[in-house]
Amino acid sequence: MSKTIVGVAASSGVAIGKAFVLTNPHLQIETVSIEDPSSEIKRLTDALEQAKAELQEISERAEREMGPDKAAIFQAHLLVLEDPELVETVKGKIAAEKVNAESALHETAQMFIELFEQMDNEYMKERAADIRDVTKRVLSHLLGVKFAAPSDLAEEVIIVAEDLTPSDTAQLDRRYVKGFVTDIGGRTSHSAIMARSLEIPAVVGTKDVTKEAAAGVTIILDGHEGLVIIDPTPEEIETYRKKQVEYERQKSELAKLVHTATTSQDGVHVELAANIGSVQDLAGALENGAEGVGLFRTEFLYMGRDDFPSEDEQFQAYKQVLEQMGEKPVVIRTLDIGGDKHLSYMNLPQEMNPFLGFRAIRLCLEQQDLFRTQLRALLRASAYGNLKIMFPMIATLEEFRQAKAVLEEEKQALLEKGIAVSEQLEVGIMIEIPAAAMIADLFAKEVDFFSIGTNDLIQYTMAADRMNERVSYLYQPYHPAVLRLIHRVIQAAHAEGKWVGMCGEMAGDPVAIPILLGMGLDEFSMSAGSILPARYQISRLSKEAAAAYTDTILSMSTSQEVEAFVRKTFAGNSM
Amino acid sequence: MSKTIVGVAASSGVAIGKAFVLTNPHLQIETVSIEDPSSEIKRLTDALEQAKAELQEISERAEREMGPDKAAIFQAHLLVLEDPELVETVKGKIAAEKVNAESALHETAQMFIELFEQMDNEYMKERAADIRDVTKRVLSHLLGVKFAAPSDLAEEVIIVAEDLTPSDTAQLDRRYVKGFVTDIGGRTSHSAIMARSLEIPAVVGTKDVTKEAAAGVTIILDGHEGLVIIDPTPEEIETYRKKQVEYERQKSELAKLVHTATTSQDGVHVELAANIGSVQDLAGALENGAEGVGLFRTEFLYMGRDDFPSEDEQFQAYKQVLEQMGEKPVVIRTLDIGGDKHLSYMNLPQEMNPFLGFRAIRLCLEQQDLFRTQLRALLRASAYGNLKIMFPMIATLEEFRQAKAVLEEEKQALLEKGIAVSEQLEVGIMIEIPAAAMIADLFAKEVDFFSIGTNDLIQYTMAADRMNERVSYLYQPYHPAVLRLIHRVIQAAHAEGKWVGMCGEMAGDPVAIPILLGMGLDEFSMSAGSILPARYQISRLSKEAAAAYTDTILSMSTSQEVEAFVRKTFAGNSM
Repeated sequence: MSKTIVGVAASSGVAIGKAFVLTNPHLQIETVSIEDPSSEIKRLTDALEQAKAELQEISERAEREMGPDKAAIFQAHLLVLEDPELVETVKGKIAAEKVNAESALHETAQMFIELFEQMDNEYMKERAADIRDVTKRVLSHLLGVKFAAPSDLAEEVIIVAEDLTPSDTAQLDRRYVKGFVTDIGGRTSHSAIMARSLEIPAVVGTKDVTKEAAAGVTIILDGHEGLVIIDPTPEEIETYRKKQVEYERQKSELAKLVHTATTSQDGVHVELAANIGSVQDLAGALENGAEGVGLFRTEFLYMGRDDFPSEDEQFQAYKQVLEQMGEKPVVIRTLDIGGDKHLSYMNLPQEMNPFLGFRAIRLCLEQQDLFRTQLRALLRASAYGNLKIMFPMIATLEEFRQAKAVLEEEKQALLEKGIAVSEQLEVGIMIEIPAAAMIADLFAKEVDFFSIGTNDLIQYTMAADRMNERVSYLYQPYHPAVLRLIHRVIQAAHAEGKWVGMCGEMAGDPVAIPILLGMGLDEFSMSAGSILPARYQISRLSKEAAAAYTDTILSMSTSQEVEAFVRKTFAGNSM
Repeated sequence: MSKTIVGVAASSGVAIGKAFVLTNPHLQIETVSIEDPSSEIKRLTDALEQAKAELQEISERAEREMGPDKAAIFQAHLLVLEDPELVETVKGKIAAEKVNAESALHETAQMFIELFEQMDNEYMKERAADIRDVTKRVLSHLLGVKFAAPSDLAEEVIIVAEDLTPSDTAQLDRRYVKGFVTDIGGRTSHSAIMARSLEIPAVVGTKDVTKEAAAGVTIILDGHEGLVIIDPTPEEIETYRKKQVEYERQKSELAKLVHTATTSQDGVHVELAANIGSVQDLAGALENGAEGVGLFRTEFLYMGRDDFPSEDEQFQAYKQVLEQMGEKPVVIRTLDIGGDKHLSYMNLPQEMNPFLGFRAIRLCLEQQDLFRTQLRALLRASAYGNLKIMFPMIATLEEFRQAKAVLEEEKQALLEKGIAVSEQLEVGIMIEIPAAAMIADLFAKEVDFFSIGTNDLIQYTMAADRMNERVSYLYQPYHPAVLRLIHRVIQAAHAEGKWVGMCGEMAGDPVAIPILLGMGLDEFSMSAGSILPARYQISRLSKEAAAAYTDTILSMSTSQEVEAFVRKTFAGNSM
C-alpha cells in the first residue's frame, strides 16, 4: 500500500520517479599503528590534493551552471583544506602518535566539528558542516571509497534528503533531477528557493521522508499541494500522470502570456517585474515575460571572490543588465551585505542579532569607499538603459538624505569629468523596516519611488526571524498589521504622485495579489517562475472590484480570517 | 592641567573621588617540568577548592545584597570549576607532559578561551569571559598572588574600568563605591542599568578613560552631563562641589514628593509606577513614591537556580509583593524567557536572532506546563492585592486569545477546588511588537489594558538591536514612527475605554514625558530612581498645553527635530 506524507509545497509541479536517497555513508575508520610517519603524511597530502582538484572542478561547474554565488560554498571548502590549524594538527598527530592518516584526520576533524557544533549557533554549525563535508571527501580518497554523491546521478530521479545544502544542490546534475523532497526546511529555506529557481517541483519539511522512502522506490511528488506519495498504486500514478499533463497544459497556456502586458480585467495596467541576483538570471526573467527588473540584488556580485569587485567589473555587470533590458526599468539595490550575509574578505564582527544589525545602508554609510565605488559604477551604467537606484534598510530620513547626498556628489564628480550619466535616473528606497512604513508620507516627499520588501518587513513587524522554524508560524503576510502598513505606504506614495513596487515573496503570492491590486500597488516584482501565473491571475481580476474589498480586509482581525476571505472571494482566478 | 572626557550619562549625580582602576593583572606563568604529577595534581585540586569556597562566599554575599538574579553569574563560575572537560584536560596535561599546574591550567584555559572568542558571538564570548575570570582566580591561588579585585575596596573611590561585568558589580563593596566610569557601554548596557539601580552616578562609553586615568588620581564624574574630569583643578573641584550640593538639594526637594500623588499643573492625575525584578526591589520603589508596580519581571524568579521555581514558591513571591503594595496596582508580566535570557536548567536552542526568536508568550504557549504553573501561582496570589496580569511579546490576536483561555481554564479549576481568586483581576498585554501596535484597535476590544514596552518596540520598529553598539544610533525613542505608533496605541485604547501604561525606559525620560502626557498616557512605569524627578516634572506641566503640541510633533520628520522642539518648548520643567 502506498503511503502519503504531507510537507510544505516549496516549488510547484508534479514529478514521478525513483527515489535517490542522499545519505551520509558510514566510513569505517580503523586506527592502525604505522612505522613511517613521513610516508603516511605523504598519503594525507595526496588525498588532500585530490580533494582540492575535485573541489576546484565542482566549483567551476557550479559557477558555470548556477552563477558565482552558488560556487562560493566550494571556495569555503577549499579554505578548510588549506587551513593550517586543521592540516598541521593532523600531520602532528600522525608524527607524534604514529597512527594512520585516516584515524588522525577523523579524530582531529571530529574534535573541531564537536567544538563548533556545541556552539549551538547557526553560523558555527555551518562551519562544522563544511568541515564534515570536506573531511568525508578526503577520507573517501584515503580509503579509496566512492559514495553516492549528488554528482553521481545517471538516470532521472527524485532526490530524497534530510536537507539539501548549497553544496548538494550545486553538485546536482540538473538533467537528471526531476524533483526533490526533504525532511526539513520551509518555503523560504535554501532548498525551496533553489527548487523554484531551477523550476523543478519540490516538497520540503516532511519531517521523515528519508525514513519512509527506500532507495529506488517510486515516488510521486506534488509540489502544488505539498504531498509525497511513496510506492504509489497504479491508480495513483495514473491520477498524477493526468495532473502532470494538466500542469503542462497550464504551463503552455501561460507561455502564451509571455509577450503580453499585464492588464487587469477592467483594463488597468500593472508592471510585473523579476527579482534577479546576477546577469545570468536575466535570461530566465525575459523568458518568463518580465516587464522589468524590480530588484537586482547586487550583493551576489561581491560573493564567491577574494576581494571587492572593482568599479569597472560592477559597471560591466550593471551595463549588461541595462542593455539587455533595453527601455524596460531596472531597479538596482545598493549593497545589502552584513546581517546574515558575510563576505569572506570583509572582516565584519559576528553579531548577536544579525537581522537587527550593522548591514546594508547602515554599513554603506559608514564604509563610504565601498558605497561610492558602487554608486559610480551605477551612475556610469545609467547611461545605458532605464536605471532606478534603490537604498536598502532605510529607517530614518537622515539615512536617505545622506545616501542621496553621496550619490549626488559622485554624480557631479562624474559629470565634471565629462562622463555621461542618465538624466532620468530615479532614486528610491526599500520599505522593509516598520519605521519607514510608518513615516512613508514623509519619505514620499523626498524619494522617487518605494519598493516594499515584504520578507524583512514582515519579520520586523512580527518580531519573528523568518529563518527560525520555531517562530515561523508568525511569518504572516496577511496579518492585518502587515496589510495596514502596506496600505499606508501605497496611500502615502500616491498622495505625492510616486509609484510603489513590491519585491518580497508576497508580490507573487496568489492570495496576496488580489489584495495588493485592490490597494493600488503599481509594480509586482517576483521570482521569474511566478510572473506568468501572476499575469494570468491579474488578467482575470477587476482592480475596481478588488479595491472595493480593501476596507473590509483591513478591518479583519487575523491572518487566517483574511486568507479565508480572499480564497473564497477570488476563487478560481488563479491557476 | 585637568582633562575632560565625554561619555554617556548613565546614572545621574556628581561624584568626586580617587580613581580605583580595575585592570586585568598580568600573571606571570612559567612552564616548569615536574617530577611528581600526582602532587602537582593535588596542588591544582587544592587551588580549585579554594576558588570554589571563595566563589561560594561571593555568591552568597551577592544574593544577600543584590538579589538572587545577581548571584547567578557565580553559579555559572562554579559550574566552570566543575566542568570535567576543562578540569580533566588540565589534569591529563599535567600527567602526560609532566608540567606544573599553572602552565597546564593556563594553556588549557587559553585554548578554550580562544576557541570561544573566535566564535565572535556574544553568548560564546560571555562563556570565554567566565572561563577567563575563573582561571584568573584559580591561578592567583596557585601563584599565591592577590590582585586588585573589586571586592578589595577599603576607601571611597570611583571605579574606572574597561567595562563592568555582572561579576564585577556584584563584588563591589557598595559602601565604598561613589561612582563608576567605563570605556564601553551605552545607556542600556549592564553597567548603566546597574548604576541606576544602585543609585550611584555613572558615565559609560568614554572609549578610553582607562588609558587616561591613572590609579589614585582624583576624578570628577558628572552623571547628568556624561562628563569625566581627570585630575581636576581646585576651581573645577569647587564648581562640582557646588553642583553636588545643588544635586543633594534637588534630591531633598524631590523627597518631599514621595507621598504625594502625581498631578499635572492643570490637575490631571497620572500614575507613576515602578519596574521591579524581585521582591527585594519593592523597598526602593516605595521609598521613591511609586503609586504601583507597572512591571514585575518574573523571569528573575527563574534565574540563578537549578530548576524551575515551584507553584508555591512563586505564589509566595507574588503574594508578598501584592500584600506589601496593599491596594496599589501591581502589573505582573508572565515569563519572558528565551531570546537573550536563558535558564541553565532549560535546554533552549541557541538562535541566530534571539531577539526575533522563540521567547516569552511564544514559548509559554508551547510549553504550557511551565505557563500554567505560573498562572496558577498568580491566580492564587490575586486574592491578596490588586493584581493585573500581562502577557509579553503578543503579536497576534490568536496568541492573546489562547493565553487568556489557558488562564480562564486554570481559574475555573481553582474556583472548583474552592480556592479564592480575585474578581477584579485585569488581563492585559505588552505592546512591544509593531504588529500589536498596528492593530491596537482590535486588541483594545479584548484586553483590559496595554503596557507599551518601548525598549523592544523601538528596536523592532527600527530593526536595530539595542544592545549592538554599531547600530545604537538607530535606537531613537523620538523617531516619528515610534511616536506615531505610541499615539495610535493610546488612541485605540481610549476609544474602547481601556487604560494604557508604558514600562520601557522611555516612560522616565524627561524629553518623552511631555509628549506622552500630551498624548494621554495613563500610567508611566520606570526604574525607582526616576519616579520623583518625573513627578516633579509632571507637576509643572499642563496636560492640555502638552496635548496641543501632539499633532505638531507627530508631523515632524526626524528624532532630532522632535527632541530639539521638546527641549525648547518645555525648557525648565524638569530638574
